[in-house]
Amino acid sequence: MNKLVVDMVEPTRADKFSFGLWTVGWQARDPFGDPTRPELDPVESVHRLAELGAYGITFHDDDVFPLGATDAERGRRIERLRKALAETGLQVPMVTTNLFTHPVFKDGGFTANDRAVRRFALRKVLRNVELAAEMGARTYVLWGGREGSEYDTAKDVRAALDRYREALNLLTEFVIDRGYDLRFAIEPKPNEPRGDILLPTVGHALAFISALEHPELVGVNPEVGHEQMAGLNFAHSIAQALWQGKLFHIDLNGQRGIKFDQDLVFGHGDLMNAFALVDLLENGGPGGAPAYDGPRHFDYKPSRTEDIAGVWQSAAANMRTYLLLKQRAAAFRADPEVRQVLSDAGVPDLARPTLDPGEGHESILADPALTNFDADAAGARGYGFVRLNQLALEHLLGAR
Amino acid sequence: MNKLVVDMVEPTRADKFSFGLWTVGWQARDPFGDPTRPELDPVESVHRLAELGAYGITFHDDDVFPLGATDAERGRRIERLRKALAETGLQVPMVTTNLFTHPVFKDGGFTANDRAVRRFALRKVLRNVELAAEMGARTYVLWGGREGSEYDTAKDVRAALDRYREALNLLTEFVIDRGYDLRFAIEPKPNEPRGDILLPTVGHALAFISALEHPELVGVNPEVGHEQMAGLNFAHSIAQALWQGKLFHIDLNGQRGIKFDQDLVFGHGDLMNAFALVDLLENGGPGGAPAYDGPRHFDYKPSRTEDIAGVWQSAAANMRTYLLLKQRAAAFRADPEVRQVLSDAGVPDLARPTLDPGEGHESILADPALTNFDADAAGARGYGFVRLNQLALEHLLGAR
Amino acid sequence: MNKLVVDMVEPTRADKFSFGLWTVGWQARDPFGDPTRPELDPVESVHRLAELGAYGITFHDDDVFPLGATDAERGRRIERLRKALAETGLQVPMVTTNLFTHPVFKDGGFTANDRAVRRFALRKVLRNVELAAEMGARTYVLWGGREGSEYDTAKDVRAALDRYREALNLLTEFVIDRGYDLRFAIEPKPNEPRGDILLPTVGHALAFISALEHPELVGVNPEVGHEQMAGLNFAHSIAQALWQGKLFHIDLNGQRGIKFDQDLVFGHGDLMNAFALVDLLENGGPGGAPAYDGPRHFDYKPSRTEDIAGVWQSAAANMRTYLLLKQRAAAFRADPEVRQVLSDAGVPDLARPTLDPGEGHESILADPALTNFDADAAGARGYGFVRLNQLALEHLLGAR
Amino acid sequence: MNKLVVDMVEPTRADKFSFGLWTVGWQARDPFGDPTRPELDPVESVHRLAELGAYGITFHDDDVFPLGATDAERGRRIERLRKALAETGLQVPMVTTNLFTHPVFKDGGFTANDRAVRRFALRKVLRNVELAAEMGARTYVLWGGREGSEYDTAKDVRAALDRYREALNLLTEFVIDRGYDLRFAIEPKPNEPRGDILLPTVGHALAFISALEHPELVGVNPEVGHEQMAGLNFAHSIAQALWQGKLFHIDLNGQRGIKFDQDLVFGHGDLMNAFALVDLLENGGPGGAPAYDGPRHFDYKPSRTEDIAGVWQSAAANMRTYLLLKQRAAAFRADPEVRQVLSDAGVPDLARPTLDPGEGHESILADPALTNFDADAAGARGYGFVRLNQLALEHLLGAR
Repeated sequence: MNKLVVDMVEPTRADKFSFGLWTVGWQARDPFGDPTRPELDPVESVHRLAELGAYGITFHDDDVFPLGATDAERGRRIERLRKALAETGLQVPMVTTNLFTHPVFKDGGFTANDRAVRRFALRKVLRNVELAAEMGARTYVLWGGREGSEYDTAKDVRAALDRYREALNLLTEFVIDRGYDLRFAIEPKPNEPRGDILLPTVGHALAFISALEHPELVGVNPEVGHEQMAGLNFAHSIAQALWQGKLFHIDLNGQRGIKFDQDLVFGHGDLMNAFALVDLLENGGPGGAPAYDGPRHFDYKPSRTEDIAGVWQSAAANMRTYLLLKQRAAAFRADPEVRQVLSDAGVPDLARPTLDPGEGHESILADPALTNFDADAAGARGYGFVRLNQLALEHLLGAR
Repeated sequence: MNKLVVDMVEPTRADKFSFGLWTVGWQARDPFGDPTRPELDPVESVHRLAELGAYGITFHDDDVFPLGATDAERGRRIERLRKALAETGLQVPMVTTNLFTHPVFKDGGFTANDRAVRRFALRKVLRNVELAAEMGARTYVLWGGREGSEYDTAKDVRAALDRYREALNLLTEFVIDRGYDLRFAIEPKPNEPRGDILLPTVGHALAFISALEHPELVGVNPEVGHEQMAGLNFAHSIAQALWQGKLFHIDLNGQRGIKFDQDLVFGHGDLMNAFALVDLLENGGPGGAPAYDGPRHFDYKPSRTEDIAGVWQSAAANMRTYLLLKQRAAAFRADPEVRQVLSDAGVPDLARPTLDPGEGHESILADPALTNFDADAAGARGYGFVRLNQLALEHLLGAR
Repeated sequence: MNKLVVDMVEPTRADKFSFGLWTVGWQARDPFGDPTRPELDPVESVHRLAELGAYGITFHDDDVFPLGATDAERGRRIERLRKALAETGLQVPMVTTNLFTHPVFKDGGFTANDRAVRRFALRKVLRNVELAAEMGARTYVLWGGREGSEYDTAKDVRAALDRYREALNLLTEFVIDRGYDLRFAIEPKPNEPRGDILLPTVGHALAFISALEHPELVGVNPEVGHEQMAGLNFAHSIAQALWQGKLFHIDLNGQRGIKFDQDLVFGHGDLMNAFALVDLLENGGPGGAPAYDGPRHFDYKPSRTEDIAGVWQSAAANMRTYLLLKQRAAAFRADPEVRQVLSDAGVPDLARPTLDPGEGHESILADPALTNFDADAAGARGYGFVRLNQLALEHLLGAR
Repeated sequence: MNKLVVDMVEPTRADKFSFGLWTVGWQARDPFGDPTRPELDPVESVHRLAELGAYGITFHDDDVFPLGATDAERGRRIERLRKALAETGLQVPMVTTNLFTHPVFKDGGFTANDRAVRRFALRKVLRNVELAAEMGARTYVLWGGREGSEYDTAKDVRAALDRYREALNLLTEFVIDRGYDLRFAIEPKPNEPRGDILLPTVGHALAFISALEHPELVGVNPEVGHEQMAGLNFAHSIAQALWQGKLFHIDLNGQRGIKFDQDLVFGHGDLMNAFALVDLLENGGPGGAPAYDGPRHFDYKPSRTEDIAGVWQSAAANMRTYLLLKQRAAAFRADPEVRQVLSDAGVPDLARPTLDPGEGHESILADPALTNFDADAAGARGYGFVRLNQLALEHLLGAR
């Protein structure tokens, strides 16, 4: 690789790359296997991620102090983390809660059938929101991985959504009352660990948000692999989230099709869709302007076959792949041939309103150009989409 | 089967069963095969469906008169249909538009990259909305099967959603201005015929609706198989649509997993989820009251292996299965053992607010019952969900 | 339920129901959650399963004694199990090896890239085959859940299949040399815990077996959920395994579509396919004779929401559902209307050879009935498959 | 792109690229839409494909002459095709039969429940095998897209496999008796157009072949998208087919996950798996020698949005992508860093037998290195698979 390219793929803090402490810290226990790696001290993770070029780290409460820790223990652990952050200059752009590991949450947190559990979950989140605000986080993620069911009659879904809303309304009221500069981001997932999870896709979460008391404080935190576990086009869902003004945060990783949640390195899955995603985030697709300026957050797992050296290599791989795709997407958008083919395909024309200024339904009904429209002739148009996709692929391959 | 059961599975008009003319009329052409059945006269379909116990039929414009028909031809065809409806007493609860068969729509209707096509699509829908209102339909379905893409750079999704919204806003303005008593229902589908379809799930459609000018006039028309093509729990998505007040119509059929759109007879797919669905629609799940009172609309295809006798057998099978499931769901809800197990599982408790009346975040934070909460003890609770599901299964099998 | 039906769904040893010790013993640790249940003593499991009506139990070596146990400890644990078996009369029809939990197997056992690991895996299996023979097992299952890869260049698949074959050849030589009355059964799975597992389906495993030195000693142990995780029809794959004389064992459970491995109770997934499966095993489908006489082995997991009472309820549910389906399938096959519809559908005709006795290609080429064949007329035949499926569904629902 | 690269991606006949006449000739009729392109004369296709660099074309009987054509008409059509082949020098490496379009095959060809249909299907294939031999084809493909069912009780799968075998045995006897230099290749597919197709994966087909009278004359013709429609790793299945000596032909195209059969341009789907596939075919993966020397056959569909210019662009895109991937794979294998990482990962070590020469089970059982094996130490090894995959990705992106 030449010097210029190398520079472009060296991450800097301006790239806003962040990592969950639970990602590099994953000990590689899976449903059929015991841990393959020792515990990792969060302080070490902060230092190593800083060296690798990240600008921030994120965490669940339980990543830093165990459930049931005394206040003293909790404080001590937080202090150690704070010190590491200060030493490295890393930020904490996002914090989240663990409402899934402990058996108490086996039927959910906000939507557990057991009211005492729901109350306990609310308190756990509230306490951690306080911490998030103290740490300067601007986004608080809610992944409701246990909110769901295996059996259709075991969960009254409408009641569950009532309780989910009740919880979100309480949380938004909390940040308003406390004056925190913090917004919430719901992370959808279709299944695993529950058979079916509530708010399974970006769409379902966005719809739910529209029914809240303070929808302006709640957005989504889509994860590549989660949307792809439902066979959906991740770049499409991100585009809709952006369109609805709700892309508050994003989880980047890799997934190879509809199966268990793989949490591979970003790009180590559907590479062409990853290219389209980076193009959308960085260039707004055909729009030409960045569509998102928040953290590029990696929520991945270093494979179980890796030792600690492999952990750091995999962390670096996420950033490097992102930057390579960014570079490829910039070249794609700058290529005059691409612009011509996009134009031939009518891509920019879609930005033009269908109606003329001031036009309404009666004018459409009366328009003689439509009454006499030659559908067969219009239907003969070739859009050239395959050629366009081939150009994208060749730019992705660095072959143009 | 005994007499009582037989009566319960004979459909009557009170059951509100409706069929698309395109369902029984499908000539069984598939991507790899030519038609296996002759054209079916809509007039015959109306008579046969009436005899079988349906209360209504629905149609696309192109099911009744061909695209490009003269006004005279169009009128003649409509008149024949109207006569058959009058003879049988069948209603037309829903009408929809064909924006997918003709090549002109190969890149979509409302969101085609070609503006002339978008305008033509708008006019086609407006004209058919007029007809729908004349026929007394109360719901107008929009299935945007061609609104989408195969290639990520070929469609500016945010611009497409702008155009989609523009179209919907025009349509709601139209029914308001004309004073039609008609609401719109968007039918989501993840893919096929496009590689990725916009508004791919019930969630994405509900979210989109929240961004419209007249969201109150737009709901969803979920189809069993479409949501299951994304691996999602259909009964869950219906529950969310109901929760958001948006279940304006429903398409019942069968699908056997994530694959091409099968459009099997209702129940001839995921039978346990079909049971949960009917239980939700008829009993509101644990709620005890019907959750939906609109048409039970079958959008299925008689398999390609069937002749015309098989077509009518398959139509009857849809209704019969629905009624059997309704009967089973009623027995399930009436069973005292089920009630006990539901109660043990905490299902009804989820309807109880998590907060006490007047309670807020500070009281949750201060509640000593939560500060001293014994998570391990609470985590030891057995919910008995498997037993509950087994009871549901045994009721479904008629074994209790 | 009436008395007769109740009797039919009470399991007896003649039903040959068996359970893995790891099923009821699963502590409900999942990828996102800690165990929700305490360890279960295998001795207790044996007694409880015997009371519930099972005829046998199965185990991995690690279910009975830990990896690295001294010979003394190993012997002590085996003795305790043996005693419980003697007390209850339960058999051990099958034994298997754990080559997946310990980190040493993170890249596989027989096909690990590390040769020392491969050798260690061989020894672990050989030792446990000795134990299996001592316990009277007739089937030894090999689930190669770690034999696979996440990344395409990380595993030389052809070399891996060489090593897999080498291992199987060694094992068959072992049982021959030792004179054990024991056959091997490969259990396919498409993915999880590895991104892609070798021998991912029943088909791939059957094909592999044909390349072994002693194919007669190796068959398959298909699991409902595993084949369904690839979207395949389980009853079809079982039929092919039977057709190839290779259904040596079977793992019954439930799965709701293409997603992570759910291991639900048998029937708590695709219920209609479960019905077809039981019909095939018990009635040989249309054949009228049982197609399989081996153990009906449940390889399921009691959901994480269940306590120990729920564990035993779930174990009972597996057997009860099987027996209910068996009852329904018998009624289906006995129904004269079903027989007529099967006959109209040509189902029994498929058993008739396509060629006349002694007929060959030249006679087919010369047959005037074929030269003048009226394809259009033959294509007009209605098979009545939908009606047949509706009859099956109604028998399944106990509605006929 | 520089001159060298351009040369490498210009297809020549030595590349052995072939296309089905039905691919470029597809008129873009889909389940929801009418054709968007006019019929294409096979003679024109031959000339255009020759100009683009293909070395051969393939066809179904019905692509060249309609079912029911008189012998005279059939002969005339074949003659025109022959002339075009002679003019261009294109070969016909493979021929196949259409047993799916006409209604007569709606329940299958070789396995239709209707015996008369089965006999008609046999004759259709035999006649076309004669033609294939005359055209110099060396491979005869059998895609049984209609051999299957929608409903589990409608097809006696074991009887169907008997009939399938009967048909294959007749065909192999035919080529032996006639002295044709022709082998058969079964093309698996999991579903579509049937709900479940028999021999759904490469594995199931390979297993079936092992039960034939002349297995040496029958192999597989795997198609990228078909195996991926079952969520399987295509490169893995190809490796197994190669391992079993059965990769007689291959169908290259693109598929974006588990959904309907997309038949996109090769590479326009799972790009990383396409890279692994080309690496396997061209370099034998780590083996260093080509693993396959047959035709690189594209079985794709130019998207419905394309006009005839787009058809030829898409045809060219297939070949160009293949050559780019071949180039990238060559660079990957030549990179010393890659070799080191492969070595560290133990990839080449898997080629080494697990047993020492002459070693058997008793020696494994007695080996003190295994008795005292330190599993924990061995389990701590880091394989570096993520780094390896990142190197592959960077070579794929042309970034190294």
